[in-house]
Amino acid sequence: MIVVMNQKANHKHINAVSQRLQRAGLQVHLSQGVERTIIGAIGDKTRKGDFALEAMPGVDHVVTILKPYTLVSRAFKEEDTVIKVGDLEIGGQKIHTMAGPCAVESREQLFEAAELVKKAGATILRGGAYKPRTSPYAFQGLEEEGLQYLAEARARTGLKIVTEVMDASTLPMVAEYADILQIGARNMQNYFLLRAVAKVNKPVLLKRGVSATIEEWLMSAEYIMAGGNYNVILCERGIRTYENATRNTLDLSAVPVIKSLSHLPIIVDPSHALGQWKYVSPMAKAAVAAGADGLLIEVHPNPAEALCDGQQSLTPENFRSLMEEIQRVAVAVGRSII
Amino acid sequence: MIVVMNQKANHKHINAVSQRLQRAGLQVHLSQGVERTIIGAIGDKTRKGDFALEAMPGVDHVVTILKPYTLVSRAFKEEDTVIKVGDLEIGGQKIHTMAGPCAVESREQLFEAAELVKKAGATILRGGAYKPRTSPYAFQGLEEEGLQYLAEARARTGLKIVTEVMDASTLPMVAEYADILQIGARNMQNYFLLRAVAKVNKPVLLKRGVSATIEEWLMSAEYIMAGGNYNVILCERGIRTYENATRNTLDLSAVPVIKSLSHLPIIVDPSHALGQWKYVSPMAKAAVAAGADGLLIEVHPNPAEALCDGQQSLTPENFRSLMEEIQRVAVAVGRSII
Amino acid sequence: MIVVMNQKANHKHINAVSQRLQRAGLQVHLSQGVERTIIGAIGDKTRKGDFALEAMPGVDHVVTILKPYTLVSRAFKEEDTVIKVGDLEIGGQKIHTMAGPCAVESREQLFEAAELVKKAGATILRGGAYKPRTSPYAFQGLEEEGLQYLAEARARTGLKIVTEVMDASTLPMVAEYADILQIGARNMQNYFLLRAVAKVNKPVLLKRGVSATIEEWLMSAEYIMAGGNYNVILCERGIRTYENATRNTLDLSAVPVIKSLSHLPIIVDPSHALGQWKYVSPMAKAAVAAGADGLLIEVHPNPAEALCDGQQSLTPENFRSLMEEIQRVAVAVGRSII
Amino acid sequence: MIVVMNQKANHKHINAVSQRLQRAGLQVHLSQGVERTIIGAIGDKTRKGDFALEAMPGVDHVVTILKPYTLVSRAFKEEDTVIKVGDLEIGGQKIHTMAGPCAVESREQLFEAAELVKKAGATILRGGAYKPRTSPYAFQGLEEEGLQYLAEARARTGLKIVTEVMDASTLPMVAEYADILQIGARNMQNYFLLRAVAKVNKPVLLKRGVSATIEEWLMSAEYIMAGGNYNVILCERGIRTYENATRNTLDLSAVPVIKSLSHLPIIVDPSHALGQWKYVSPMAKAAVAAGADGLLIEVHPNPAEALCDGQQSLTPENFRSLMEEIQRVAVAVGRSII
Repeated sequence: MIVVMNQKANHKHINAVSQRLQRAGLQVHLSQGVERTIIGAIGDKTRKGDFALEAMPGVDHVVTILKPYTLVSRAFKEEDTVIKVGDLEIGGQKIHTMAGPCAVESREQLFEAAELVKKAGATILRGGAYKPRTSPYAFQGLEEEGLQYLAEARARTGLKIVTEVMDASTLPMVAEYADILQIGARNMQNYFLLRAVAKVNKPVLLKRGVSATIEEWLMSAEYIMAGGNYNVILCERGIRTYENATRNTLDLSAVPVIKSLSHLPIIVDPSHALGQWKYVSPMAKAAVAAGADGLLIEVHPNPAEALCDGQQSLTPENFRSLMEEIQRVAVAVGRSII
Repeated sequence: MIVVMNQKANHKHINAVSQRLQRAGLQVHLSQGVERTIIGAIGDKTRKGDFALEAMPGVDHVVTILKPYTLVSRAFKEEDTVIKVGDLEIGGQKIHTMAGPCAVESREQLFEAAELVKKAGATILRGGAYKPRTSPYAFQGLEEEGLQYLAEARARTGLKIVTEVMDASTLPMVAEYADILQIGARNMQNYFLLRAVAKVNKPVLLKRGVSATIEEWLMSAEYIMAGGNYNVILCERGIRTYENATRNTLDLSAVPVIKSLSHLPIIVDPSHALGQWKYVSPMAKAAVAAGADGLLIEVHPNPAEALCDGQQSLTPENFRSLMEEIQRVAVAVGRSII
Repeated sequence: MIVVMNQKANHKHINAVSQRLQRAGLQVHLSQGVERTIIGAIGDKTRKGDFALEAMPGVDHVVTILKPYTLVSRAFKEEDTVIKVGDLEIGGQKIHTMAGPCAVESREQLFEAAELVKKAGATILRGGAYKPRTSPYAFQGLEEEGLQYLAEARARTGLKIVTEVMDASTLPMVAEYADILQIGARNMQNYFLLRAVAKVNKPVLLKRGVSATIEEWLMSAEYIMAGGNYNVILCERGIRTYENATRNTLDLSAVPVIKSLSHLPIIVDPSHALGQWKYVSPMAKAAVAAGADGLLIEVHPNPAEALCDGQQSLTPENFRSLMEEIQRVAVAVGRSII
Repeated sequence: MIVVMNQKANHKHINAVSQRLQRAGLQVHLSQGVERTIIGAIGDKTRKGDFALEAMPGVDHVVTILKPYTLVSRAFKEEDTVIKVGDLEIGGQKIHTMAGPCAVESREQLFEAAELVKKAGATILRGGAYKPRTSPYAFQGLEEEGLQYLAEARARTGLKIVTEVMDASTLPMVAEYADILQIGARNMQNYFLLRAVAKVNKPVLLKRGVSATIEEWLMSAEYIMAGGNYNVILCERGIRTYENATRNTLDLSAVPVIKSLSHLPIIVDPSHALGQWKYVSPMAKAAVAAGADGLLIEVHPNPAEALCDGQQSLTPENFRSLMEEIQRVAVAVGRSII
C-alpha cells in the first residue's frame, strides 16, 4: 500500500500516518520525492483495506498494490482449475455448451428443447424455474414444478442441469435438483446468497454483475471460495455501457483477463449480452476463439412464443448450425466442443 | 406498442404479427410508411412486455409507448407523496437529514455520533448493523448488537432510525428496531427482498442500483408498492461511469427526472457518490437546490479511525458547517432543513 | 512513479528496470514487500509518461504519482484565476450567465434573443455560427453571416459574445468577432485547434468532451496554457453514461473536483447535459449551489421553431423565472448573478 | 417518426403538432390509445431530424423510425463493399493485417518493423507520423520526415501504407504519401476533417470514437460518403466503459452489428482497445471469428524502448505466432489471412 501525501503535508502529518500504519502491524518506508512524500506500507494486512487514511490530514490518496483477493488468484493456484460435473469436466480441453430455454414454461417445451440441444451436441441443459424479472407483472417462473421438469429432462437425455437460485430460502430445494447452481447477474453481490451457496456441495456458475468490474466479480467468487466451495465457474454475460445497439456490451476481453488473474474456468453467455438472436452465432464463435471454456446459449423450440427472452433465443435450426461452426473454431484453437 | 417491420417484410409477416397481437387482446393499426410498415398495438396489456415479437420474421424492432410502471407514476397519483415516520414527514416542505456513521462500531461511537448529528439539526440517525462489503475479509457489521445500540440511541436522542436490511431472513429482526428499512444499492433488484419488505408496515428507503436506469429503479419501487407497501422513499447515491475522480458519479439530474415521472419522495446520498469528504458539502447543497427531499450523510466522531468509509465521512465540525450552509440554500428554494 | 513487479520477477528483471529509469535521469528506490518488489522512481520527468515499462519482463504495472499536468494545477497557482472579458470578470464573486440560442438563425431571431436575455440579467450572448452536427444533412450554421449578426447584437446590447470555433482554418475570422472562443465537446482533443487558440489573445471556453475524464480535460487546458494562452474557462456539459432519461449525465461533481485540482474557473451548461428544457432550471440552481462560476443556457424566442436543439431551449418567460430563482441560490452561497 | 403526446395533451395541442408536421410536407396519422395519443408522421424528411417537437405543448417525446443515415446502409447497397488498395481488396474473402509501430521513430526502427511484419504475412504497414497525444509534453511524431520513411519502407517491401491524418491543413501532404488515410478516434466527429477527406481520392480508415455509438460512427462515415468518397473502412478500437482492467473495452459485437446495418468493411484494432500486449493475441483471434475483415496491430522491434504505446506492442516473435494462430481461425470461418 502506498500513501501519497499532498503537497502541504508536514512532518506531523507524515508521522501520524506512519504511526497509524505501524500500529496496524505494517512495516513503513518513507520516500521523499521532488514534489510529494510517499509512504510505503508493507504487509499482507494491507489486503483488508479497512484503513480510512484519506481521512487523515495531509493525505492525498492511497494506492493499493496487492490485489484484494487471494483464493481465486493465479498466485494461489497456478494451474487451471477443472471442475467436475458428474463425468463432465469444465475448464479442460473440451468446451461445454449449456443450452436451453430462458424459462421452463411447460414439460413439453422443456423436453423438446432438451432433446434438440442434446442432439446438436450440448452437454448441459439450462432453464430457469425462478426468474428475476425487472417487472413485477412479468412471468416469474414455474418454481418447483419447473425444477421437476428439469430433473425429468435430465433423466430422459442424460444432460446435466444448470438453473438459477435466487435466494437462500429456496436454495435447499434448487440444490436438490440442479447439477450446477447459477447465481444471476443481479445477485452477484448478494452476500447472504454467496455465503449460502458456499456451504453447498455443488458447482456454482457465477454470472458477472451488469456493472461489476472484473475485480469485484473475483471478490464475489472469493466469498464463495472463502466459505468453502472451491467449484466456481465464472460467466461473462455483458456489461452495461452507453451503447444500445445491443442489449449489453459483451466484454469478451474478460476471458483473457480472467485467465491471467485467476485459475477458475470462464464461460460466455452471448444470448443475454447481445439480446438479439442474429448476433449470437458470431459472438459465440468469438468467445471460443478468445479462450472461453464454455458457452451458455438460449434455444427455444419456438422463440416467437417464448414467455421470456424470445428475441434472443435461437431456433432449433440456428442452434444446429451454430454448433457446427463453433466446432471448427474450437479445433482451430486446439480444443473441441463435441 | 409500435412494431417496426424491416424493409423485406411481406404481407405474410405483417399478418402474422397482427394476428399475434390480436390474439393477445390488443387492437391493431397498420401504417405504411415510405420505407417501412409500422404496426401499432393499443391496449394496456402492452405494459407487460412479454411479447417476443423480434423473434418473428420480418420484425425489425419494437418500441414501447407506455411506461412499464403504474403505481409509482405521476399518472397514478398526481400530488406528491408525503411519508410519515412517526411525527416526521418526508416529501413535504421540510428537508430531512439522515446522518451518522457508515457502520455501528460500538455503543460509544454511535452515541457520540447520534448526539452530535442531533445537535446540528439532523432528524434521523443512520448506521449500518449489517454491512454489504465487497471483500469477505472486511468488517461485516455488529448485526443484532448494532441494532440494539441504534434503538438505545433513538431512546436517548429522539432521532428516528434508518438502517439497512440485507436479506429476507433478517428482515423481521431489523424491522423490529428500524423506523425506516434501507434497501442498499446492491439489492435494488433482489426481488425476494423487495417482495418481503412489501409485506412490512414500515417505510422503505430504496437506493438506486449503481448501474440502474431510472426506469429500472422505479420498477423496483413498483415491486414494493405492488406488494402492498406504498411508503417508498427513493435515494440517489451515484452511478457507475468511466470517471474515477469520484467514487461514483452523482446523478443529481435524477431528482428533477423522478419528480417529473413519479409522486414518490427522493433523497440524495452525496457521501457514497463522491467517496471523499471534501466534496460532500458542495454536492449536498446542490442536491437541495435541485429539489431533493432529504439527505443521507456519513458523519463519524473520528473518521480516521472508522472501520468503514472513513474517507468519505464528515467530522463533527464539518457536519455542523454543512448544516448551516444547507439551511441557507434550502430557504433560497422555499424549503427548510431545520 | 511506482513500478510494481510481478511475482515471478527476478533480480535481472529488477536491475533492468532500475537501469532503464536511471538512464532516464530518475532516482530509484527499491522496496521488497511480502509478495512483490516495488521500484519507486523519483523526478518530475516521470510526468512525461513516455516509458513503456510494462513491456519489460517482470513488470506487472506502473502507478503514476505526479499528475501529468502542471500549469493548470493548484500547485502551480494557488489563488483562483479570474479572467477578464472586457469589464466582466469570470471566476470572481459574480456568477455570469451566457445565454442565447443554440444557433444563430437570422438577424431578427438573434436580436430578439439578445434583448430578452440582456433584460433578464445575462451578461454574455451565446449563439453558434458554425455548428457541429451529427448528421451531414442537418443545418450547419450561417457561418460568417452569423458572426456579423452576433457583432451587431453586441453593439446593440453591450453583451459580450461567446461562439464556437470548429477549425483552425476559420479561427482568424471567428476571433475577429468573438469575445470568448468556444471549443466544443467534440473538439476537446483536437490538438491542432488547441494549439491554434493558444496563439490567440482571447479567452477560451473549453467544453469537456462527452467521455473525457477530468484529467484528460485538464490536459487539454494544459495544451492551451502551454501554448501561451492562460485565459481558459472550463465548461461541464454532461458526460456519456448508460442512463438515457437525460441526453447526457450532468457531472456536477466536476465543479468541486476542478476547484480542488485547478485554479481555473468552471461554468456549467445544463441545457446540453439535460436535453429537455424542463430539467434546466433545477440543475442550473444546483450548479450554482455546487460552486459554478457561470452558466451557459440555451434560450430561444420560440423554441418550437428552432433549427437546432429547440427541445432543450427555454422560452423567454422560463428564462426570466430561472434568473430570479438562481439569484436567490447565488446569494445563499455568498455570490450574486446580477 | 412517432410523436407520443403526454396524458394532458388536448385537441389544440394535437392539432398544432399535426399542422406543424403537415407544413413540413409530412403525412400525418392519428392514433388514440388507451392512455396516450400518438401522431405518426410519414415521409423521408423525418430523417433530417430538425424538428423541435418536444418544445411544443402536450408533447411527451418523439420516436424516430427511420435510421438517420442512407448511403452507408445495407438498404442503399445490399452487397458488401470491397475496397481496393492497389492490388489488395479489403472486405473480400481475404483478411488483411495492418501492422507496425505506434509511431514512426526513425528510419531504422521503421524499416526493421516493416520487414518483420511483411515476413509474417501483413499486407499493410501502419505507423504514425502525426501523433495525437493527451499530453502536450509527449512525443508528437516526426511529421513529414516520418511520412518519407513510410514511403521508403513501402518502396522496399511492397507493403501498402496506412497513417493518420490529424487536420485538414496537413491532409494534402499526408495524402501524397499514404495509401489509406486514417482518421483517429478523437477526430471521428471533426467535421472539417471528414469533409476534407471526402474530397480526396484515397480510402479512409475511420476509427470509432471512444464513446461513439454505432449510429454516430455510421453518421461520420455518411459525412465522408455524402462528400463523395465511398471508400470507407470502419475500425473498432475499443470504447470507454467503467472497466479498467483493460485500456478500453473492445466492443467486438460491433462487427456483426455493422455487418447487419451497413455494407462497409470493418476491421478491429485490439492493441489500442486492450492496452496490454498479452491480451492482443486472443482478442485478434476473436475478432476474426466474429467476422472482421482485417486487423490493425501494433508491432515494435523492441517494445520496451518504444516512444509510444510500447506496453501494447507485440515483439517480432509474438507477432509471428499471432499470425499463425489467426490463420487457423480464419480458415475455420471460411477465410484466409495470408
